[in-house]
Amino acid sequence: MKLENAISETRACWIWYPGDWEVWLHEQVSLRREMREVMFPPFWRLDSHYSSVLFKYEYYLAEETTVRITAEGQYAVYLDGKDNHRSNKHEITLPKGKHTITISVYNVKNVPALYIEGEIIYSDHNWEVSCYDSRWKPVGSWPSQFHSPHTLPSEYKLETELQVAKNIEKTEKGWLVDFGKETFGYLQLKELSGQGELVVYYGESMEEAKDTEHSVLIDRVTIDEEKGVTYTFKKSRALRYVQLIPANETIQFQIVHLLYEYLPVTYRSQFKSSDQRLNDIWSTSMDTFHLNTREFFFDGIKRDRWVWSGDAYQSFLMNYYSFFDADVVKRTLIALRGKDPINTHINTILDYSLYWFISIYDYYQYTGDKAFVNSQYENMVSLMEFCLSRRNSEGLMEGIEEDWVFIDWADLDNRGEISTIQILLCRSLEAMSLVSALVDDTKRSKTYQHEAEKLKKKIMEIFWDEEKGAILHQRLDGELSNKITKYPNMFALMFGYLNDQQIAKVKEKVLLNSSVQKIKTPYMRFFELAALCEIDAHPFVLEEVHDYWGGMLDLGATSFWEEYNPAESGSEHLQMYDMPYGKSLCHAWGASPIYLIGKYFLGVRPVTPGFQDFVIEPKLGGLEWFEGEVPIGEGNASIYMDNKKIRVKANHGKGILKYKKNEQTLEKAIPTDGSWVEIDL
Amino acid sequence: MKLENAISETRACWIWYPGDWEVWLHEQVSLRREMREVMFPPFWRLDSHYSSVLFKYEYYLAEETTVRITAEGQYAVYLDGKDNHRSNKHEITLPKGKHTITISVYNVKNVPALYIEGEIIYSDHNWEVSCYDSRWKPVGSWPSQFHSPHTLPSEYKLETELQVAKNIEKTEKGWLVDFGKETFGYLQLKELSGQGELVVYYGESMEEAKDTEHSVLIDRVTIDEEKGVTYTFKKSRALRYVQLIPANETIQFQIVHLLYEYLPVTYRSQFKSSDQRLNDIWSTSMDTFHLNTREFFFDGIKRDRWVWSGDAYQSFLMNYYSFFDADVVKRTLIALRGKDPINTHINTILDYSLYWFISIYDYYQYTGDKAFVNSQYENMVSLMEFCLSRRNSEGLMEGIEEDWVFIDWADLDNRGEISTIQILLCRSLEAMSLVSALVDDTKRSKTYQHEAEKLKKKIMEIFWDEEKGAILHQRLDGELSNKITKYPNMFALMFGYLNDQQIAKVKEKVLLNSSVQKIKTPYMRFFELAALCEIDAHPFVLEEVHDYWGGMLDLGATSFWEEYNPAESGSEHLQMYDMPYGKSLCHAWGASPIYLIGKYFLGVRPVTPGFQDFVIEPKLGGLEWFEGEVPIGEGNASIYMDNKKIRVKANHGKGILKYKKNEQTLEKAIPTDGSWVEIDL
Repeated sequence: MKLENAISETRACWIWYPGDWEVWLHEQVSLRREMREVMFPPFWRLDSHYSSVLFKYEYYLAEETTVRITAEGQYAVYLDGKDNHRSNKHEITLPKGKHTITISVYNVKNVPALYIEGEIIYSDHNWEVSCYDSRWKPVGSWPSQFHSPHTLPSEYKLETELQVAKNIEKTEKGWLVDFGKETFGYLQLKELSGQGELVVYYGESMEEAKDTEHSVLIDRVTIDEEKGVTYTFKKSRALRYVQLIPANETIQFQIVHLLYEYLPVTYRSQFKSSDQRLNDIWSTSMDTFHLNTREFFFDGIKRDRWVWSGDAYQSFLMNYYSFFDADVVKRTLIALRGKDPINTHINTILDYSLYWFISIYDYYQYTGDKAFVNSQYENMVSLMEFCLSRRNSEGLMEGIEEDWVFIDWADLDNRGEISTIQILLCRSLEAMSLVSALVDDTKRSKTYQHEAEKLKKKIMEIFWDEEKGAILHQRLDGELSNKITKYPNMFALMFGYLNDQQIAKVKEKVLLNSSVQKIKTPYMRFFELAALCEIDAHPFVLEEVHDYWGGMLDLGATSFWEEYNPAESGSEHLQMYDMPYGKSLCHAWGASPIYLIGKYFLGVRPVTPGFQDFVIEPKLGGLEWFEGEVPIGEGNASIYMDNKKIRVKANHGKGILKYKKNEQTLEKAIPTDGSWVEIDL
Repeated sequence: MKLENAISETRACWIWYPGDWEVWLHEQVSLRREMREVMFPPFWRLDSHYSSVLFKYEYYLAEETTVRITAEGQYAVYLDGKDNHRSNKHEITLPKGKHTITISVYNVKNVPALYIEGEIIYSDHNWEVSCYDSRWKPVGSWPSQFHSPHTLPSEYKLETELQVAKNIEKTEKGWLVDFGKETFGYLQLKELSGQGELVVYYGESMEEAKDTEHSVLIDRVTIDEEKGVTYTFKKSRALRYVQLIPANETIQFQIVHLLYEYLPVTYRSQFKSSDQRLNDIWSTSMDTFHLNTREFFFDGIKRDRWVWSGDAYQSFLMNYYSFFDADVVKRTLIALRGKDPINTHINTILDYSLYWFISIYDYYQYTGDKAFVNSQYENMVSLMEFCLSRRNSEGLMEGIEEDWVFIDWADLDNRGEISTIQILLCRSLEAMSLVSALVDDTKRSKTYQHEAEKLKKKIMEIFWDEEKGAILHQRLDGELSNKITKYPNMFALMFGYLNDQQIAKVKEKVLLNSSVQKIKTPYMRFFELAALCEIDAHPFVLEEVHDYWGGMLDLGATSFWEEYNPAESGSEHLQMYDMPYGKSLCHAWGASPIYLIGKYFLGVRPVTPGFQDFVIEPKLGGLEWFEGEVPIGEGNASIYMDNKKIRVKANHGKGILKYKKNEQTLEKAIPTDGSWVEIDL
């Protein structure tokens, strides 16, 4: 034990039970979904923070010192376990010598949080906390956000910025306002006056805002103002259009603003190419993705506003090629896992539990943040135990009880043993093995590795059809189905489960075979196109991106959609879930070109955790030239490529430039001093 | 599925997720402990209600019908799973035919609760509820309490009644008020006026109220009133005395009242005997017990005001011989168990988990309420799994990690294998076996029975010392200790684990052996004296009750204490936990004469669940005569006995009167028509 030294008190931060602030925030945020003014809570169990927790810190002081205590909640302080001698004073003098300070904090409504200011003793990550279950854990905190006693964790809000309506026009009964593009925030009316009710119909499309019978989001306010006032609506909404319908003609306003609400992030990637359409797709992808990058990674901003593990898995990957915001990844992973006991899969979806394991391993690979992985290890093991306990007698997972086996929005029979699920489980076991090794749990690491190998062998034995050159979709009641879908084949390819002959067959007979059922969601097009990039089908991918994402742009999209079927037309594009405006027009999974471009065209990927070692392997894929930037951990990599040369530089880690010249794959070290290296092709 | 019939809508009641209202109430109540104005939360994890739940009811209607919906929290209603078509209207018309109505309710602060009024469809125990964990459970409710839409479950309060101070006298700095006996409630001052602070020091003893430096409970109010007002303090407190100290002479009041706060119960037992001292003990026990019978069974009213499983185990038994209030037993059992995951023992005390199992079986035996036992079965199995998973390699339980092995407040070494713990575990396994059989889980029933038998054998093999005629206290690191304590011997005797020879030895060498360590708490004197009654040592028990409880009366007690050591004197009696007034002077476990008299003197006990069959075996035990009443399920039994005759009657079940005449034990059926039967002795 070392003697405490005096240091700056600005190092203090708010502390709480680890994960509880995220769980609490997740609950708040999850309840914001509405359907025509009626609340719409999530389909899964919402967990709560512990209302009563105990913070502890052991110190050794040469002289007594004074601390000031601020808490969210009631608190009681005592020393050395003498709990009958407790105080709730704001300022307390701590005696010299070796002592343990214990602070009990209670708060039902918000997370019990603690802030200790002092020259020597202050609250930080070195404190421990317990929910009185006889275990002590390192506290949770977010020092870069909550480092002042006046910034309360319970008052966390995203930033806002004023946006001005692009166009206002009279409609039959009111006004139609266009903000020019998809956005999100609090509607604000200036110089509002009159008497009576004013109703707002929001629309991601003009059709929706105009259709008062079916628009999904509605707000109403009753006004009684002689003189004009500024009124800001209470709830943040997704919109491009709003229709305002007053109860009578007394109601007037002059200006329509939006307090655009957003998570402050740094745009750490850039992309520009010879192909303007691709540039537009990249930039609309970034808009779409930022709108969905909020307290957590959302699926879509209009409708669910929920945190879904499969959707988040892709958002994590897009984030590594755009904002590289580690905090929102961590918040999302914690919120998804929730608390024990585990009675259902994450989001009640079998595949969504599996994506969570892989996401944590990816997070480590991209950030090198071992501390976070450590903090989640117990949660990973227990969720994996839950999964493994639900295998059938063959050791395969299938939907049991109320499990939802999703895979994709598509015409799929997901009963029985689905090959895609087994492949995701196998990858999850591999992720668990790697993480176990990381936290020095060698025994578990070996067990998981062994389970993964056994399962991989079984998958190929059961589902691989040599003649068809494909992994089949399903086995039900012992009967192998003839159906081929792209899903298992693209995942197996991406995860490296196929040999060269199998890859060649899958490419021809599945991925590039137009008679195989087409994928209608950007969600699964993400993996489909990534898999095609893995086998160097860049020109094909580029064409698909052009057609598919470009197709949405042609229809006037300012953000990418939850689903896009080129075969549909007109208002069909707005429908989903049996509702005329059921479809989300700003869906995170629509933004996947960010990932495809960053990883497979600019070609940047980590080799060791946190980009200590990394590779840049740019591929033009049919473009004349491109230039761009991609975050590599704490630094950035810049890439330029045309048919004649490649230029790269990087200011972090040890990079290797990989390129093809005269049919040979060559490598060159990237200077570690941040200077450019150039290759003639 | 039957067609719904129109019935009276007064049958509707509030419904909630089962156990959640009790868990919520437990959290509220547990936080009321204070130490000199500073909060003092419990030492164990406090669980919360689920904030987001889903109610479901399937109906089949010949004609459409209207229902009115009231909820605690936001709600959304939809039919037949069409969750995009939801409503939050108060009045809804339900279509005819077969449909499922689903209502989502959300409430963070209070328990999401639902009340449906309608002629045909209304909320009651037939509804189901889920916390979105893919399981549906029968709802929780308390129809006799919450049957009106205006009586909100979140506003539950005990009753109050005015009590007038018995005496007020001036002290040096203020006034000392005596309410004449131990009581509990909200202090009320009439015609209070003046400017400044008024501080109240509460005392269960006069010493405590007078000692402003050390009294445990303090309230303060700042007054600024010209004219006299009535002021009621916000917090209910335990007290007999209060000292009021005003900041200055402007502060005046005329009358001191107490809003005595209590749980409305029926005093269903009576006792009167030839021994006035015993009558006083019985009646002070009833006062003590009623004060501690509240939202839950508390340990004591001044200090902890918490729900402790070992304490509650005794309260349950006392309750069966006094109020026979099943609701407070159920509330207490639910609160104690809390929610999953189980990370520690109940109250963090190993023995306290074990008492919980036995308590549930006792509850069934006394009430015959199978529905409640059913509702707790899953909770019982998982807690037992937790316990069994913590056995050592010998199959015995010992305190591991942070477990607290309590047994009693006494000079005890409770490390290693404590025989009392194994005996309680054995009894718990037997209780589990009986309950498993009750819910038709034959397989588990057999397993538990087998485990119990194995354990019983092992206990006697390891701990029984034939020579000493006693079960030894402890085995530590394989070393059997020589120490004899009364605990394991009295439990083994009560639970029927000893043969006749062993009983005789234990009686002589342990229970009646004055060189064996004496028990200082009424808590364990409860079991000690019960065990002695089991072996017909009534005259000895009567003498002990006289001395021990009578000893407290002699010291002026108006309620019985947490601990009483006749060897102490003066203010020593008030001390505990290193505090001058640390001892609770109104502790539930002090009231055990209720049980001893009801079960062993009046002699009433159930033979089959809910007193369908019962025995009355009255024993004078040295008294000249007694008469009394005891609840027997829904009915009551009346007993009179003197040296010449016994008279009993009962208005419920099938009773047998057992008695001794001419050294023979005889039996006689008790008339089922409620008439007296009389026996000459």
